[in-house]
Amino acid sequence: MMLRSLRSAVATTASLAAVGGAMAVMAAPSAAMADEGMWTFDNFPVQTVNQKYGTHLDQAWLDRLRLASVRISGCSASFVSPEGLILTNWHCVVGCSQELSNPQQDYVKNGFTARTREEELRCPGQTAEVLTEIVDVTARVQAAGQGLEGAAFNAARQAEITKIQNEACAGDDTFSCQVISLYRGGQYSLHKFRKYDDVRLVFAPENQAAFFGGDPDNFNFPRYALDAGFLRAYEDGKPAETPTFLKWNPEAPKEGDVTFVSGNPGSTSRLLTMSQLERLRDQQLPVTLIQNSELRGRLLEYSLTGDEAKRVSFDPVFGLENSFKVYYGQQAALTDPEFMAAKRAEEDELRAKVAADPNLVQQIGDPWADLARVQTTATELYLPYRQLEASAGGGSQLYAWARTLIRAAKNPTMTEAQRARLSEAVGAETPVSTDMEEIRMRYWLSKTREYLTVDNPQVKAMLGRESPEALADRLISGTKLTDPAFRRQAVGMTVEQLSAADPLLAFVAGNDQAARAIADRWAAEVNAPTARAAEKVAQARFAVYGTNQYPDATFSLRLSYGDVRGWTYRGVTVPAFTYMGGLYERATGSEPFNLAQAFADNESKVNKEVVYDFASTNDIIGGNSGSPVVNADGEVIGAAFDGNIHSIGGAYGYDPELNRTVSVSTAAITEALRNVYPNPRVLEELGVR
Amino acid sequence: MMLRSLRSAVATTASLAAVGGAMAVMAAPSAAMADEGMWTFDNFPVQTVNQKYGTHLDQAWLDRLRLASVRISGCSASFVSPEGLILTNWHCVVGCSQELSNPQQDYVKNGFTARTREEELRCPGQTAEVLTEIVDVTARVQAAGQGLEGAAFNAARQAEITKIQNEACAGDDTFSCQVISLYRGGQYSLHKFRKYDDVRLVFAPENQAAFFGGDPDNFNFPRYALDAGFLRAYEDGKPAETPTFLKWNPEAPKEGDVTFVSGNPGSTSRLLTMSQLERLRDQQLPVTLIQNSELRGRLLEYSLTGDEAKRVSFDPVFGLENSFKVYYGQQAALTDPEFMAAKRAEEDELRAKVAADPNLVQQIGDPWADLARVQTTATELYLPYRQLEASAGGGSQLYAWARTLIRAAKNPTMTEAQRARLSEAVGAETPVSTDMEEIRMRYWLSKTREYLTVDNPQVKAMLGRESPEALADRLISGTKLTDPAFRRQAVGMTVEQLSAADPLLAFVAGNDQAARAIADRWAAEVNAPTARAAEKVAQARFAVYGTNQYPDATFSLRLSYGDVRGWTYRGVTVPAFTYMGGLYERATGSEPFNLAQAFADNESKVNKEVVYDFASTNDIIGGNSGSPVVNADGEVIGAAFDGNIHSIGGAYGYDPELNRTVSVSTAAITEALRNVYPNPRVLEELGVR
Repeated sequence: MMLRSLRSAVATTASLAAVGGAMAVMAAPSAAMADEGMWTFDNFPVQTVNQKYGTHLDQAWLDRLRLASVRISGCSASFVSPEGLILTNWHCVVGCSQELSNPQQDYVKNGFTARTREEELRCPGQTAEVLTEIVDVTARVQAAGQGLEGAAFNAARQAEITKIQNEACAGDDTFSCQVISLYRGGQYSLHKFRKYDDVRLVFAPENQAAFFGGDPDNFNFPRYALDAGFLRAYEDGKPAETPTFLKWNPEAPKEGDVTFVSGNPGSTSRLLTMSQLERLRDQQLPVTLIQNSELRGRLLEYSLTGDEAKRVSFDPVFGLENSFKVYYGQQAALTDPEFMAAKRAEEDELRAKVAADPNLVQQIGDPWADLARVQTTATELYLPYRQLEASAGGGSQLYAWARTLIRAAKNPTMTEAQRARLSEAVGAETPVSTDMEEIRMRYWLSKTREYLTVDNPQVKAMLGRESPEALADRLISGTKLTDPAFRRQAVGMTVEQLSAADPLLAFVAGNDQAARAIADRWAAEVNAPTARAAEKVAQARFAVYGTNQYPDATFSLRLSYGDVRGWTYRGVTVPAFTYMGGLYERATGSEPFNLAQAFADNESKVNKEVVYDFASTNDIIGGNSGSPVVNADGEVIGAAFDGNIHSIGGAYGYDPELNRTVSVSTAAITEALRNVYPNPRVLEELGVR
Repeated sequence: MMLRSLRSAVATTASLAAVGGAMAVMAAPSAAMADEGMWTFDNFPVQTVNQKYGTHLDQAWLDRLRLASVRISGCSASFVSPEGLILTNWHCVVGCSQELSNPQQDYVKNGFTARTREEELRCPGQTAEVLTEIVDVTARVQAAGQGLEGAAFNAARQAEITKIQNEACAGDDTFSCQVISLYRGGQYSLHKFRKYDDVRLVFAPENQAAFFGGDPDNFNFPRYALDAGFLRAYEDGKPAETPTFLKWNPEAPKEGDVTFVSGNPGSTSRLLTMSQLERLRDQQLPVTLIQNSELRGRLLEYSLTGDEAKRVSFDPVFGLENSFKVYYGQQAALTDPEFMAAKRAEEDELRAKVAADPNLVQQIGDPWADLARVQTTATELYLPYRQLEASAGGGSQLYAWARTLIRAAKNPTMTEAQRARLSEAVGAETPVSTDMEEIRMRYWLSKTREYLTVDNPQVKAMLGRESPEALADRLISGTKLTDPAFRRQAVGMTVEQLSAADPLLAFVAGNDQAARAIADRWAAEVNAPTARAAEKVAQARFAVYGTNQYPDATFSLRLSYGDVRGWTYRGVTVPAFTYMGGLYERATGSEPFNLAQAFADNESKVNKEVVYDFASTNDIIGGNSGSPVVNADGEVIGAAFDGNIHSIGGAYGYDPELNRTVSVSTAAITEALRNVYPNPRVLEELGVR
């Protein structure tokens, strides 16, 4: 599943054209700008913050916030009661709502409210993880793979990482352990999590309340979105005990109030070298934008064919349009001459400082040149790697299951326990739209033929004498993988049995060797040398600028600081707050600017003066969705759900003048639970009267 | 209507990734490479060619070829009999086939054969033009607008051009006159054409014969396509007398034989400055590729909904996919660092030579700096200009008619004769698919909202409180413009009457002022200063390199020379010829690699040794489609229909090692008219027994 990204309302002057247009580049760390950084909890600049904002943060404050912060699938969240109640975004639970829905009961459209604990419904596959321990394992990881190259290097590194993880978790299923790469390999941290496997849906508003303004307003501000939802962690069938939780503060912050965002930013690329950025700009991003746009067109036309088509395509279209905006904004940043010139100056400075220090040169060599060479290989391998492996199946769930099953059957080292977990994972009651699956498959097959050419041996093997459309139809209409029982049963079968039993499994089995071959080449010829060289760049950076730096985002827990603030772009000032009354003013009656039913029905009860959404200077990125926004006292005052349009370029650099986090206020959530979706049960649990 | 572009079969190693990968840049003219150039007939390098190829070309040879060359809508063609018979490509007549078709009779799928002259059907709107006179009018055009800027400059230039054209044609309807800009304004030529307004369809093969391999094989080679069709020019209801025509030679050429291609290359950008190329690369091409891809996805999904949907979408999808490949290849060239470095070196050389000559500096100033400044403005204006004017309507025919009618009604200077022509043009019996129209409109409206933002005043005015989907539905389902009688009637109405009569006309009228405003700004702030500066660059080029240069393509008659030759790319050699037997080997039975019915039925009769398609080194580009390929004796031996994948970058530079023209041989057309689509009538007229 994709990393959930953040969303946003339109600033009157902001347009896609404006993305990245005035972006500053992250300055060298020694001169770090205020409010910049997605800091690890073990390297947070406490003194800087206390000095700037007059706060009194200490280790206990940090520990409490960390232990109340929750990582869920692709998103961030927090405990807000001692009984496992979790605050996150609506858009982080909508996938669950969609999976629990059917043509008769649409929780996406109508929202979901469990009136009692018994009505809380388990979200298939959802987990909740709390970061309990951070251990520096850099030396162990970097020692592994010394002197090795390519596949051998990868294998040695992976073996050591697996060993560290296994040792740390020691088979205890209530924990999960993950070695996290930081600073692009400059540091490795073991993160140990308390893990909850049973997570249930408590509350989600109507999509039209949460996603008012839809794609047009996404990544924009002012914004009027109740992008909030509640889950609950369960243990042994009972609500989990979570004594460390964030106190719910139903008051909105004031302009200039300090704000902290604790969550899991998914991925930034601020530490990439110029040659890496240029390959993204010239190949990967354009191809992704172009292909995704065609899929978007296909899904949009399908969504208009009927109510059920609209229902099943809602979340996939949402996700696709969201990532489109992200990639478009990233491309805008990378084609901005000023921005790229600043990045180049930054790199030149670092390289010059390295060159001036013979010891350093001897230690790290010239990793920039190494990375430039890797880009030549990456450019050569990217299209087959993308089409045959990385984006194979075009997002088809059935294809993904088929590949998982085939690869599991081929894996001689799988344990019984692993098989059991696999069976549970693939056997979940996940609804599948075969219409959508077929669209994705024919899209993927036709793009693969287009980009690799019809005479490519892999393409020929894949299509045989069939057209992409006919093949997609045969595979999807013929597969039994829509049946959870069959999927569970399939876990125990051999490749030959799987292939004999099902056309899609046979198709995947027949093409798996080619897919694995290109994946192996990518790993050995791109990933391995990139890891080695990036590690050297990181060492150079540490040597030149010291350790008061934050690493690129890697979907691991980070803390950012800032304050509540609007911004000014091209002479237009966008204020920091919206109010609930603004929703009614912006509504036109036409999708996606129509009022949610409950907001329309309860207009007279809603306090229109309540702060709805607000902007702050916190440095965040996709994956931070659902992150608690806390005040200096560590109380939760909102849930981050988006960045403004300028924040998208934040993938490559933070601009303090323009980058903004957009959050839904606890004040608005409280008001909604009082007067729009009355929910005394949750209000009481939050301690609100 | 779009400029028809050329098409092509896959070289085993060629992929979209390979486009432009090894492209050389057009050298400075003084060192012009062999076979490069789309030369005007009044500046053709006769001596160079005679010397290199041992030919005996003279003025009479050139005149005869010019007078047998025909320009049709978006394409090229030639007279091949004294009775107005015209050879062109199937893909240049398929639009006519589509317009003449209906759900009961599909001439696109089944092909079209007129068994008698009486069965030849008029193609709506099609014309045929023969270039009878070329007059240099540079001094007159350049004198107009002296000392003026912006809109005043445009108006003065346009007035002088109109005057020149009117004087030359002197109201004689059998001629058309056009002032052509050459060398980006360095020269202006008056082209006077003998014009035929009644052009009828004589023969078109099944689409599956002409476009075997479809989009996957397009722009590739080896190729197996009968991309040929015949039209006939009529005058006063009778076949036109065309004593100057090309003798039909049914023998295929040999490898190394000299070949000439006479036709109308649509547009190249080889003389653009770096700042102009960079804006195309960073803004215009990416946005076009992304938006077109979404439309492609929408149309493709629609095309799968039924037989009629497939029928009506065939040609639009074809055109969209063709232009997609062109833009993709252009973008690949502009993101190729080697290519761009060579372009920059070329520009630097010219600028250095200018800078070294104080007189020249005084004469031309620094037009490169001027053009760089214009790009800043163009970048700012491009999205609104694109969405509100240049691409408004998303390709909707009904929208185009509506805009034409509204603007005609607003134009106080229109003469009765102009109104009559307009009435004839809009009143043609052009079939319209309202499904397709609605898709285009909702695509355009939603993209306009997306790229200009929902809070843009023009977007707000356009959408009001409606969604793009609801608005598109209301406008298209409500408009009477589908009725030719209403369209004719509408020509005489005022804006108020038009708006009262029809929702689409009302919509266009309501938004026309904003559209015109941005169009006017684009003309005054981009086009005018570009014209002035580009003229200076051309003067610099003439001063430094002399006049032995060819101009960029401008859909005006050009002659290119070369020889029959394959090419070698990354160690793989692609031969110059394919043979008709190869078709049967490549066929898989699945679209688009299934055999056309007539080719399947007549396999036993077809001579499989006949040359089908062939490659030559001629320098061509989209618009050359249908161009006669002639030998040293001036006999027609083929019709150019495509370039290979490497030729796409030819928009920016010609690479003699890789750029190739792809033509269907007269040998194959003859064989087809004998044994696949037996047509003794046409064979006899071609003088073939």
